[in-house]
Amino acid sequence: MSGPGELMHALVRRLHPICRSMTGDGVRRTLEIIGESVKLDVHEVPTGTPVLDWTVPQEWNIRDAYLKDRTGRRVVDFAASPLHVVGYSVPVHATLPLAELREHLHTLPDQPDLIPYRTGYHTGTWGLCLSENTLRELQDEEYEVHIDATLADGHLTYAEHVVPGRQADEVLIECHTCHPALANETLAGIAVAVQLAQALAEIPGGPRFTYRFLFAPGTIGSITWLARNRDRVGLVKHGLVLACAGDPGPLRYKRSRRGDAAVDRAAAYALRDREHTVVDFTPYGYDERQFCSPGFNLPVGLLTRSPNEGYPEYHTSSDNPDLVTPDALAGTLAAVREIVEVLEGDRVYLNLQPYGEPQLGRRGLYRSPALNRDNKQHQMAILWILNYSDGDHSLLDIAERSAIPFAALLEAARVLIEAGLLTEAPQSPDSGGERA
Amino acid sequence: MSGPGELMHALVRRLHPICRSMTGDGVRRTLEIIGESVKLDVHEVPTGTPVLDWTVPQEWNIRDAYLKDRTGRRVVDFAASPLHVVGYSVPVHATLPLAELREHLHTLPDQPDLIPYRTGYHTGTWGLCLSENTLRELQDEEYEVHIDATLADGHLTYAEHVVPGRQADEVLIECHTCHPALANETLAGIAVAVQLAQALAEIPGGPRFTYRFLFAPGTIGSITWLARNRDRVGLVKHGLVLACAGDPGPLRYKRSRRGDAAVDRAAAYALRDREHTVVDFTPYGYDERQFCSPGFNLPVGLLTRSPNEGYPEYHTSSDNPDLVTPDALAGTLAAVREIVEVLEGDRVYLNLQPYGEPQLGRRGLYRSPALNRDNKQHQMAILWILNYSDGDHSLLDIAERSAIPFAALLEAARVLIEAGLLTEAPQSPDSGGERA
Amino acid sequence: MSGPGELMHALVRRLHPICRSMTGDGVRRTLEIIGESVKLDVHEVPTGTPVLDWTVPQEWNIRDAYLKDRTGRRVVDFAASPLHVVGYSVPVHATLPLAELREHLHTLPDQPDLIPYRTGYHTGTWGLCLSENTLRELQDEEYEVHIDATLADGHLTYAEHVVPGRQADEVLIECHTCHPALANETLAGIAVAVQLAQALAEIPGGPRFTYRFLFAPGTIGSITWLARNRDRVGLVKHGLVLACAGDPGPLRYKRSRRGDAAVDRAAAYALRDREHTVVDFTPYGYDERQFCSPGFNLPVGLLTRSPNEGYPEYHTSSDNPDLVTPDALAGTLAAVREIVEVLEGDRVYLNLQPYGEPQLGRRGLYRSPALNRDNKQHQMAILWILNYSDGDHSLLDIAERSAIPFAALLEAARVLIEAGLLTEAPQSPDSGGERA
Repeated sequence: MSGPGELMHALVRRLHPICRSMTGDGVRRTLEIIGESVKLDVHEVPTGTPVLDWTVPQEWNIRDAYLKDRTGRRVVDFAASPLHVVGYSVPVHATLPLAELREHLHTLPDQPDLIPYRTGYHTGTWGLCLSENTLRELQDEEYEVHIDATLADGHLTYAEHVVPGRQADEVLIECHTCHPALANETLAGIAVAVQLAQALAEIPGGPRFTYRFLFAPGTIGSITWLARNRDRVGLVKHGLVLACAGDPGPLRYKRSRRGDAAVDRAAAYALRDREHTVVDFTPYGYDERQFCSPGFNLPVGLLTRSPNEGYPEYHTSSDNPDLVTPDALAGTLAAVREIVEVLEGDRVYLNLQPYGEPQLGRRGLYRSPALNRDNKQHQMAILWILNYSDGDHSLLDIAERSAIPFAALLEAARVLIEAGLLTEAPQSPDSGGERA
Repeated sequence: MSGPGELMHALVRRLHPICRSMTGDGVRRTLEIIGESVKLDVHEVPTGTPVLDWTVPQEWNIRDAYLKDRTGRRVVDFAASPLHVVGYSVPVHATLPLAELREHLHTLPDQPDLIPYRTGYHTGTWGLCLSENTLRELQDEEYEVHIDATLADGHLTYAEHVVPGRQADEVLIECHTCHPALANETLAGIAVAVQLAQALAEIPGGPRFTYRFLFAPGTIGSITWLARNRDRVGLVKHGLVLACAGDPGPLRYKRSRRGDAAVDRAAAYALRDREHTVVDFTPYGYDERQFCSPGFNLPVGLLTRSPNEGYPEYHTSSDNPDLVTPDALAGTLAAVREIVEVLEGDRVYLNLQPYGEPQLGRRGLYRSPALNRDNKQHQMAILWILNYSDGDHSLLDIAERSAIPFAALLEAARVLIEAGLLTEAPQSPDSGGERA
Repeated sequence: MSGPGELMHALVRRLHPICRSMTGDGVRRTLEIIGESVKLDVHEVPTGTPVLDWTVPQEWNIRDAYLKDRTGRRVVDFAASPLHVVGYSVPVHATLPLAELREHLHTLPDQPDLIPYRTGYHTGTWGLCLSENTLRELQDEEYEVHIDATLADGHLTYAEHVVPGRQADEVLIECHTCHPALANETLAGIAVAVQLAQALAEIPGGPRFTYRFLFAPGTIGSITWLARNRDRVGLVKHGLVLACAGDPGPLRYKRSRRGDAAVDRAAAYALRDREHTVVDFTPYGYDERQFCSPGFNLPVGLLTRSPNEGYPEYHTSSDNPDLVTPDALAGTLAAVREIVEVLEGDRVYLNLQPYGEPQLGRRGLYRSPALNRDNKQHQMAILWILNYSDGDHSLLDIAERSAIPFAALLEAARVLIEAGLLTEAPQSPDSGGERA
């Protein structure tokens, strides 16, 4: 009842009603709630700050919005759903005939029950979103439209949570925070990230890598973070963007632009026995677009279930907590944890007795493979590690070749190190150094 | 009625009756007719000229040939088809019993209606070709055989047509000219080459590459050209041999010996949505054998429809204009033109704002992908080009990865260059220089 | 009746009853019988000799063993099958109740008719193997158990047979000799090796490579050989372990650890038209485990029919001469001989006329491909060799690309060398030198 799936689903439900956008108090409120579970460093970046090729925009806040008919009834009401307002709408208060209103009203004619999600970033316009059915019921008369919003100098808000590791090298986990009321597309990834952070904090002695969680508005948020961390992005050795993380569709990993980064191989390995697809990088999706821009080219992949634009509820009012299931959230979390297990555990070892097989029996390492299945797997793990630990093959390489589970190889490596038969290979320059 | 398919078919029909061989007036007449459409430089190379490992042979010309029965009826008549005479037959005029004639008579027992195509190059023999049915009707009596031919010192004849480009680097297009009355095998490729040359001449400002069209007898012709151009074959950056280009079979591209030359990738790309096959290089076929001999190893592929030896009419009297269709000729031409479009347009660009995505909106480059399909493709083309223009990926690389049509990428690159976001990467040494 | 299949089967039958183990007189007797066919150098290595990470064990010999019931009847009798005694059992002579005996009695409950094969190397225990059916018939009473064996300082015995070649570079062929009464698993490989050695000896002028046949106990035998030949294992350019070589299952080649060694490619090529599988290296199997340990990493593959653990009779009393067929033995031998043919014949040649095709006609090398299938294959072989003999492609490369049989390429290369068009490329350092 209070397993991780249920905990994540409760967080999705709690965050769902908040009106988030690229900036503003909805984002701040979202970060406050996340901060109840994991300690956050919240950053406020002033409007006008240059960030890479962009500039931090004005801050947008909204208090109320509606469309009232002549009887005073709110036929569209922001209080019912933040999706009713086009994000970054300029304020308006006027009474207009339906004919003039129409260009400001957005619907989904093919999904007449649903409210679309729309934004008007950088356009200086306003608009309301409503269902096609509601639009069809409007009369050819005047309506009072009111968007009680402010667009003014302020700040862009994002937050970081860091789980310190034994190495300064970082794993970046990023979720976008800018979409209102989209449970699967936005909030499920946040919930998975929060649970992952809590799990990492429980590793005795801490994880190997330092884990940096970034909660930021899409595009401009990651661009702002990259601009402010330009000198240290080289510390990011692995990364994952999480989105669309809670629907029941199969898992889908989109490789980093590098295509063969360690996280790409770890993700493919972790997903191998789960219903999944793995696809190549494309420059369209979430913030991996920025991390994987050619100047940075960071090893950051995207993990989703149904991908953006890949499910009918995407960017509509049907992307609500009913679309997200505790099981799907738990499945995403389990996959991410296995990716992390591989990243944490993968190393290149050296067999210290590489000429012929070492005599395992006199070291107490020989268990007859005939005895049982687990014994046989352990014995095979020992043989595989001894044979391929030549400085060129890591445990993940061996896992891929041998089809022996990574965890069994970890255990066999531990036993061989204890027996003096195995040692970690000198680190390659790219793998970073231990903290001093 | 007068589309390119029909024009090419008319040329095939006009050239069909001419008796061509390795040398002689039939080749000269063929080049005269081609020269009515595109300006030709005709080269005459004297008998005995050493060319690579070979020597230019004597010139062969034929006026008449027949087999007459005792009543004086021509049972085999050169006037009916030039295929009736074995190419390079030495002259003969004799009356012989059928039993002695048989070793000089060639038929196709499995295709009893058809006359085979045979040559006796370098053999000093003579022969006649006829249908098996005709042979069966011959009586066991004497026949008068007459081959009124001359084999004497003279010349080997070939021709070039050049469409000058902005670069000295060349694209070589070659067709063999040595086969009599084979409409698909020989003449269809010539017709496609002529149309291509005319199309290239219409490009405003001229094409990027210099296009050299070579019309030459098979084997000895390309060997002669290679021998006479040995110091400048390095200018050939791409090349195509055209043969068997007009039958209704699927297109077939045989890669150059290099296997991954630009023309090999361009051809595979251009054929992707057409019925086709792509096969690896083999050292048997047309003049790609010479261009791709290991000493030269030029990037020259072979484009056919049904390949040599791959259709029942091959090298028989049934390879006549009825086998060739205007549609098939037009399809071959369209494929060649798309190959040329890719070769002309493929370049490596550099994104000048490679850190994060540049802000497209303030440059007027952002069109909402939601608007329509073409907009979305254009927007995606911009994102793909920006992301992969890192100096390592050309437009063709991007087209292959993105499945966006090459023409759409060309347009997006143009827009990005205008916006100051993209520039051509410095040319690699291999890509040749602009003309001074 | 006396073809190679029957000869090999006769040898299997003759060797089958002998009680072999890691050491001892059974191995010596086996080598004596092999030595009747091929001259052997027998090596005796004293107990206690350090060999790599191991030590040569004590020598084990057995004269008799039985389990007698109260009537004096031998219910288990070593004379019936050497499998009845656990290999390396310490001597015992006692009368024990069934309850105490049980932990020393080994059966196969799932195959109740069969006697298992078991060893107790390095354990200091004793045991008997019997069928589950026999065990079930035993009464709950006392039995006299006697294992008349000695375990004492002595020697480990292995043997080599060498077929000298024109080069010092070696091909290693290894068979394990340590298993009692296992016809397919142990003896079929020995029989194939003996026939191969005899065939190599008949090559006029001797083979190109020196062939070293090693008959040694599994694991400790190859480890001992490696320890004693550590300075000269670099001479081993190719190698094959033979085991499970006589059952009717399809051939199976397991690649060397290198994966792309010449023997791996030769084996895949030789098996291409036979029922077979090819699998990647795994560090479990026969003595390829030692040759392919990362320190040595020799290019040694494993050829079997049904693999170890891959057939129900494996390591039971049903692995007897009835499981092995003359046809299967002959098929394994034929495959090994084709592997050897490719290793012997594969070379890199250089076309001495690489610019254009050389004129074959004036050298008498042109046979019209139209004439017949063999002519066509020969003509194509000439064209393929000329085109790809550029210093980068060997005959095997050309065989793989062209699908022309290796033997036809060998013949075409011979013809081209005679014509002065081809020469052997300078040897790469790795290919070793001719004997002085």
